[in-house]
Amino acid sequence: MSDVGTTVERYLDMWNETDPTARRALVEQVCAPDVRYVDPLAAVTGYEEVSGLIGAAQQQFAGLSFTPGGAVDAHHRQARFTWHLGRPGDEPVVVGFDVVEFAPDGRIATVLGFLDKVPA
Amino acid sequence: MSDVGTTVERYLDMWNETDPTARRALVEQVCAPDVRYVDPLAAVTGYEEVSGLIGAAQQQFAGLSFTPGGAVDAHHRQARFTWHLGRPGDEPVVVGFDVVEFAPDGRIATVLGFLDKVPA
Repeated sequence: MSDVGTTVERYLDMWNETDPTARRALVEQVCAPDVRYVDPLAAVTGYEEVSGLIGAAQQQFAGLSFTPGGAVDAHHRQARFTWHLGRPGDEPVVVGFDVVEFAPDGRIATVLGFLDKVPA
Repeated sequence: MSDVGTTVERYLDMWNETDPTARRALVEQVCAPDVRYVDPLAAVTGYEEVSGLIGAAQQQFAGLSFTPGGAVDAHHRQARFTWHLGRPGDEPVVVGFDVVEFAPDGRIATVLGFLDKVPA
């Protein structure tokens, strides 16, 4: 698996990590310090805000987890990928699509997120 | 039509404009001065390089034109959209997908491009 593929895997792990301390460590491992994250519902910057946003999402979607929705398409320092949020084996409750840009050290600098499916 | 929709329309006009002077004027109208454009085949910055890249693409795909591939999905200062390159009425030769970020003045600051279909 490429470095990019590994980083995207760790990125989803980060969204699934419910222990705040472990999550914060993952956020720092996966994201650049000035990481910028924007999806239709949130726009946050930096480790503290990203970690807080994930905690809030986990409360809203308790018991669900993030899984890859398909292959990662990457070139230069950017990648696109789809993700699912749901219960393993079930139809996903949320389907999202992220384009990320990587910092020179390979960590994620920017996440531009979109939603393909949201709960009714 | 929203400002964003209009800007994306002008963005495709810019890719279709074969007159170098008119194209440069469109590039300046549509893009921020430090615009950054990255697709799988090119990574350029600024009006001069963007305009030159478009001219080169037009030479490679003479007689084809860019058209919207569907709706523009936008929120905050970002948007995603699909585009087609081909002859009107024919199956597109190239299908691409761009995520753009807008500068505060509404012009395009960054284009993160991907390709969904390329010539065989």
